[in-house]
Amino acid sequence: MSRPADAKQSRPADVFFRSRWVEPPAGVEQLDPAELAPGFEAGAVACGLKPSGNTDAAMIVARSERCDSALLMTRNAAAAAPVRLCRQVCDFSGIRAAAVKAGNANAATGEQGMRDAVDIQLAAAEELGLERSEVAIAATGKIGEALPMDRVLDGIRQAAGALHAHGGEDFARAIMTTDAFPKRCTLRCDGVTISAQAKGAGMIQPGFATMLCFVQTDAVVDDPTAVLRPAVDSSFERITVDGQMSTNDLVLLQASGESGRALPGGLLDAVLLQLALMIVADGEGASRVGRIHVTEAADDSEAEKAARAIANSPLVKTALFGRDPNGWGRVAQAAGMALAGEELPELGLDHIDVSEFAGEEPEVDLSLRLGRGDGAAHVYFSDLGYEYVRINAEYTT
Amino acid sequence: MSRPADAKQSRPADVFFRSRWVEPPAGVEQLDPAELAPGFEAGAVACGLKPSGNTDAAMIVARSERCDSALLMTRNAAAAAPVRLCRQVCDFSGIRAAAVKAGNANAATGEQGMRDAVDIQLAAAEELGLERSEVAIAATGKIGEALPMDRVLDGIRQAAGALHAHGGEDFARAIMTTDAFPKRCTLRCDGVTISAQAKGAGMIQPGFATMLCFVQTDAVVDDPTAVLRPAVDSSFERITVDGQMSTNDLVLLQASGESGRALPGGLLDAVLLQLALMIVADGEGASRVGRIHVTEAADDSEAEKAARAIANSPLVKTALFGRDPNGWGRVAQAAGMALAGEELPELGLDHIDVSEFAGEEPEVDLSLRLGRGDGAAHVYFSDLGYEYVRINAEYTT
Repeated sequence: MSRPADAKQSRPADVFFRSRWVEPPAGVEQLDPAELAPGFEAGAVACGLKPSGNTDAAMIVARSERCDSALLMTRNAAAAAPVRLCRQVCDFSGIRAAAVKAGNANAATGEQGMRDAVDIQLAAAEELGLERSEVAIAATGKIGEALPMDRVLDGIRQAAGALHAHGGEDFARAIMTTDAFPKRCTLRCDGVTISAQAKGAGMIQPGFATMLCFVQTDAVVDDPTAVLRPAVDSSFERITVDGQMSTNDLVLLQASGESGRALPGGLLDAVLLQLALMIVADGEGASRVGRIHVTEAADDSEAEKAARAIANSPLVKTALFGRDPNGWGRVAQAAGMALAGEELPELGLDHIDVSEFAGEEPEVDLSLRLGRGDGAAHVYFSDLGYEYVRINAEYTT
Repeated sequence: MSRPADAKQSRPADVFFRSRWVEPPAGVEQLDPAELAPGFEAGAVACGLKPSGNTDAAMIVARSERCDSALLMTRNAAAAAPVRLCRQVCDFSGIRAAAVKAGNANAATGEQGMRDAVDIQLAAAEELGLERSEVAIAATGKIGEALPMDRVLDGIRQAAGALHAHGGEDFARAIMTTDAFPKRCTLRCDGVTISAQAKGAGMIQPGFATMLCFVQTDAVVDDPTAVLRPAVDSSFERITVDGQMSTNDLVLLQASGESGRALPGGLLDAVLLQLALMIVADGEGASRVGRIHVTEAADDSEAEKAARAIANSPLVKTALFGRDPNGWGRVAQAAGMALAGEELPELGLDHIDVSEFAGEEPEVDLSLRLGRGDGAAHVYFSDLGYEYVRINAEYTT
């Protein structure tokens, strides 16, 4: 099967589950992504953070009686003020609302940035009649720039007034920064609805930080963290564009339980993996997405170490971009670096398969057998081409 | 002081110590780099490994009565056959000769590659009348390609017949692969002569592996490893082009003791640091060299971790290339990623200095204060521009 190189995904763009690597559960029905899961509302306005004038202040809230939640955030030691504030004051299992601004990450903004984050959270809580601990705040955009607080507070208040049940698309577009396309879906499966919105075009943008993801469902989810953690481990934790951990990353899952049904098995995993692959495909300057699958490692952890080194190797990434049929030496070198000090067998063509490098598929599988045991792991990654350099070198503000 | 951007080094190209970051000991005299330290001979011939027809089989040998040596090699777990063989049979403290081929790395070549390495070592030892344990072999070039052994063995034998005391320049040129310029020197200081030849244009090339360095001196060096290890730690171990550990890296120090004098303090360190900086400046597609200096870390190891993350960040490297005056947010993000899980102060402009990014200097200093203790470390790195992508994406053999 041959497809144009710029398609980046194996199926048509109007089909949400478009990657060959995602297996959605049977019977999934795709709905209008504007329509949120029952019980949720979202809204967005423009407050002037984006030079384009596009919407940049957004809010999402659970109107349901009950809302169970899970919140995962970046481990970066230089985390942005919104992340630090959430860690300090939020009840991660009882988040009812999220207030998001795009265009300014409020990262590396010192004590003033933290005071601003507090004011934003207080304003959002007041507008919504919620406790501070129930309101997560998130930001994405330029690093190291002070916020125009008057406009931001106006925007947050206006967004609270713009909330409606069909605000999914508005919300997804408002949180975009350098994303080339919105990443969102609303799906129905086994009597349960799930809606999700994500943004990101790299683990971190050039000054525009971040991956953000918001998921709403009317399923009953008794322990949201126990469900979200493994789904994130096999999706957002498995992708790399430039190997850079952001200052602002955040994933929020909210469940109203209104459907009275449990989440169908595999549904959340499939949604997050597809969203994660959209982020890789939208990676800065990316033209192809690779999946490196390492097997026969001493254990899973060793396999993951090798897979990450290969996925982050600029030599492997440029070979993917350049369709190098002989890129397997680069795979061997990266694996050898990751496992420095270990005794590997002499790695040859019988251990490494990069035959898809030379093809035209937008999604490329490659594999490495280490011949040491039963450990396995895989990582998804973007290629490295001229566009990456252009985007990152020409950005100067 | 303003210089053209393509100069890459702060002083004229005919001066060996041309970097602002190298401080040679007082009274160093620069000699013709063809002239080896007394007691040593080198030679090179062409055996057809390089498509250009340039010399590619080279040998260096100590003719002195005594020869103390130290040999350091890559820790890559997929190390090339020559590296594995040296580990198995060489007496690292008594290496009298090195046989080098350029154009084929003999890496990832399976059992046949190991048999070829043995034959090359045996041929070199026989020609020179030495024990196998006294002959190091080294290789650099394409990975995963079988050696044309007839030609290689002819080349090694002919190189042994071409040995002479003024072979330093020939040797330095024969070991080059994609290097844009030879990296070598012969220096006199306090009655001691030191000559050195290095090659490399990246920690690893696209299929062309490697950094190699050979150092000869007539100084008395009782414990060569004790001298070489710290000099390598502060030079070759402090540089990065693409963060990739090679399969073939090797550094050999040989000392004949004929001068009856000790090595002047700081001489070996200055020579290796200048050679290392030449490798960074010659890095694939590099236009500028940066030095990140991290201070006030909890300890030196933490400082080094942060410095390496910054030096290998594609965001920082493209900012160096793009002369981004606001690249400091990228420095904060990379440091935060390296120290994930730690509590950092809010990093701002008072902690980070990237003011030289915007200038025209070929050697650019940047710094980060972590405000946590007394630890410090620095790393030298090349920028990331279009040429890196072109060189690595268009290479397909």
